[in-house]
Amino acid sequence: MTTLQNVVSELATGRLRIVDLTAPLSEQTPVLQLPEPFANTATFQMETISAFDAAGPAWAWSNITLGEHTGTHLDAPIHWITGKDGKAVHQIEPERLIGPAVVIDLSAEAAANPDVLLEPEHFEAWEAQHGPLPHNCWVLLRTGWSERNTDAQRFLNADENGPHTPGPSVACARWMAEHPAVSGFGVETVGIDAGAAGGFEPGFPMHHYLLGNDRYGLTSLINLDQLPASGAVLVVAPLPIVGGTGSPARVYALVESA
Amino acid sequence: MTTLQNVVSELATGRLRIVDLTAPLSEQTPVLQLPEPFANTATFQMETISAFDAAGPAWAWSNITLGEHTGTHLDAPIHWITGKDGKAVHQIEPERLIGPAVVIDLSAEAAANPDVLLEPEHFEAWEAQHGPLPHNCWVLLRTGWSERNTDAQRFLNADENGPHTPGPSVACARWMAEHPAVSGFGVETVGIDAGAAGGFEPGFPMHHYLLGNDRYGLTSLINLDQLPASGAVLVVAPLPIVGGTGSPARVYALVESA
Ligand SMILES: [Mn+2]
Ligand SMILES: [Mn+2]
Repeated sequence: MTTLQNVVSELATGRLRIVDLTAPLSEQTPVLQLPEPFANTATFQMETISAFDAAGPAWAWSNITLGEHTGTHLDAPIHWITGKDGKAVHQIEPERLIGPAVVIDLSAEAAANPDVLLEPEHFEAWEAQHGPLPHNCWVLLRTGWSERNTDAQRFLNADENGPHTPGPSVACARWMAEHPAVSGFGVETVGIDAGAAGGFEPGFPMHHYLLGNDRYGLTSLINLDQLPASGAVLVVAPLPIVGGTGSPARVYALVESA
Repeated sequence: MTTLQNVVSELATGRLRIVDLTAPLSEQTPVLQLPEPFANTATFQMETISAFDAAGPAWAWSNITLGEHTGTHLDAPIHWITGKDGKAVHQIEPERLIGPAVVIDLSAEAAANPDVLLEPEHFEAWEAQHGPLPHNCWVLLRTGWSERNTDAQRFLNADENGPHTPGPSVACARWMAEHPAVSGFGVETVGIDAGAAGGFEPGFPMHHYLLGNDRYGLTSLINLDQLPASGAVLVVAPLPIVGGTGSPARVYALVESA
């Protein structure tokens, strides 16, 4: 049997499982809150066109408004000033959007300290267990943070000093962005940078380095706790918005059943 | 090696290829045009939030407005009156969205006659060549129609009698919707019914039977001519809009290289 025949057959038997990493999209979906004078993204809104009525007797449908960066979404290079000559979301090759998932679990650390930073030594520990980072991998930072995603206040976790959410250190951002095997970086939080990263040097280093190096970001993921540390295959599916700086995305992971 | 390891390895070597079946999403994306008194879906619109300026010095991003049924998109059961007690798009199990693709080619017929109808005998011919329809398959009607998708007038192909585009006959719509192996039906045209189907009995029979039978539709696909008649694996990725009657979707096909 070919690999594709095996995929189909194992999905049917349950030997291969699909884990949906996408947060449901609704008016409750929390979005990033930037302070003045910065402008903020729209939240998700839906407006009925018709619903089994005179305007459409046998059908129902709606229009939607949202930001490119609302909910589970992908950041493309042109979202950041360091990547402004890079690819828009519609230009990202699908080959970069399907690849092995590297899951690094900092959920215990994040529960104790919401400002915990991902560091290169976390990758040393992962590689000691699982071998070198696989080619074209997506690094997924598991923090348990998705549990907060129905409560914008807890999800953004801001106080008078700003948001407190996990993310990469400056050194780690640069390390990941320059690593030949890393294709993208995904998180459970609202953005690929730590909540405190506005004050880092450079500010928002993961955006700065990743998007400036033709790598891509994914935010507001869920169900990372259902993935093995190594072995899952990620399927990232943003809408091909022409000239888009990003897009809401459906994200699946394929995993071998235990 | 496991199946997932083979998937990753074969994607890297090119033995497995990804074909993107999704039309680029922009203000040029054509949408269905219903006559009065019916209400129409929004077209795709984009509005800049900020672009490396005072409102966002290091980043650029936009808000978007569109319909659930704009561009390459999925129809969920609750879109139609026959499926109104069925699933919304966010409730469709991912297992139904990844499966074998059955590609039926009527592009020669459609070039000669834009009102050509898909009939059960087309499936008899396909099965004679490729065996029984595989479990959980997505039937994809290839017509070459996607070549018209940058020109709304040619894409919708309407005259004083209405639109003239290919689609299933009433008998075929019912046959597909009741077939135990068929999970969904996808087309290159703007909708899963033929252009003339408003006058069929029942009207819009593919919507009527498919969505009324917990099967799903896909429209405005491209690149079906890059797929084999049998053997490709479809990955359908709509946004999980809560309560949505459908959603814009990214659609990939995995194919074995020749
Ligand atoms: Mn973003
Ligand atoms: Mn539709």
